Amino acid sequence: MHIGRIIGTVVATRKDERLTGCKLMLTQPLNIEQSPIGEPLVAVDTVGSGIGEVVIYTKGTAARYAADKIQSPIDASIVGIVDHMDIQKE
Amino acid sequence: MHIGRIIGTVVATRKDERLTGCKLMLTQPLNIEQSPIGEPLVAVDTVGSGIGEVVIYTKGTAARYAADKIQSPIDASIVGIVDHMDIQKE
Amino acid sequence: MHIGRIIGTVVATRKDERLTGCKLMLTQPLNIEQSPIGEPLVAVDTVGSGIGEVVIYTKGTAARYAADKIQSPIDASIVGIVDHMDIQKE
Amino acid sequence: MHIGRIIGTVVATRKDERLTGCKLMLTQPLNIEQSPIGEPLVAVDTVGSGIGEVVIYTKGTAARYAADKIQSPIDASIVGIVDHMDIQKE
Amino acid sequence: MHIGRIIGTVVATRKDERLTGCKLMLTQPLNIEQSPIGEPLVAVDTVGSGIGEVVIYTKGTAARYAADKIQSPIDASIVGIVDHMDIQKE
Repeated sequence: MHIGRIIGTVVATRKDERLTGCKLMLTQPLNIEQSPIGEPLVAVDTVGSGIGEVVIYTKGTAARYAADKIQSPIDASIVGIVDHMDIQKE
Repeated sequence: MHIGRIIGTVVATRKDERLTGCKLMLTQPLNIEQSPIGEPLVAVDTVGSGIGEVVIYTKGTAARYAADKIQSPIDASIVGIVDHMDIQKE
Repeated sequence: MHIGRIIGTVVATRKDERLTGCKLMLTQPLNIEQSPIGEPLVAVDTVGSGIGEVVIYTKGTAARYAADKIQSPIDASIVGIVDHMDIQKE
Repeated sequence: MHIGRIIGTVVATRKDERLTGCKLMLTQPLNIEQSPIGEPLVAVDTVGSGIGEVVIYTKGTAARYAADKIQSPIDASIVGIVDHMDIQKE
Repeated sequence: MHIGRIIGTVVATRKDERLTGCKLMLTQPLNIEQSPIGEPLVAVDTVGSGIGEVVIYTKGTAARYAADKIQSPIDASIVGIVDHMDIQKE
């Protein structure tokens, strides 16, 4: 799983019907200093996350289990909201 | 899932028969400023997307669910057409 | 799926028996200008492709469906031969 | 599988219930000289690993088998603690 | 699948029990000139490969089929030993 920040949402009227009702969150991957790394992806919210929150997201088949939509087009989901990270990096 | 723009199509007469009838879209990955990032991939259209449109695409097993062709060679599918993105990036 | 060019073959006498009879094609990923990008991979031919041809290849579980060998070590397969690409890039 | 070092933990009160009880380890990928490469990921501990240890981690569906939680959002797990690496690099 | 060279082994006493008896090979990805590209990974030997040999390896679910351990933490396996590569690159 990876750490990211919710930076927005995507609105798509015409879409796979199995995505209806899914909140499509623009998620910016973060490093452990919480700086952006790489480009945002679109993940389905499954934990009530909101804009600006630091989250855990998962990819692939794991994302469909997270969304309880096994046979769907989902390949990324938000699965946790980060309270804090304890880092011990020498 | 990822954001991309449809920039063309691929014509392949000789191909896996399970791809027959599939529109093979050349899809350029985009960042949230809608600038190209990385190299185009070939995704199967499942939502009636057209050249120039900004779309959501999915990869892996999710792409076969999107195309309702579970046992096929598809590993990327277009699953939505983006109306707009709401971005709040400080 | 991705675009690539067949640039050679790999000969391996000692290998997983489920690869016996599979043509192992060295496949160079291409961009849409058909220039090489990144490093070649080894994909199983499923469409009668030959050296020099521009092809569509697929990865992961999709590649095992393409080869009709679901329970095999295959993670990449050639699934089409490109006639041409129609590109409209402004 | 890959080599990494446990550099911390992630605390998330609000999360997918199938992650309850899982230790979420911040795992820094390492090269064979045990220097950091790329950015840390979040992997579930399945072998009693601790901060500072060099570990083997796995990704994707393999990670859910490792955690014995097949239908969960897990996409990365710690599956071994490295005693040593024997390297013969000319 | 990919080309790599076996450059060592990983010893891990404490590990997922489904890895017991698996030879964990440090595998350096190679380009077609057999020069190292990127960082080594840990792949399970399934063909009796040895240090210094150039091999074919596979990733993901394909690696578990290769090892005949479908429900295991394996995500990379050695599946062939390269005799030679025939390359025709203009």
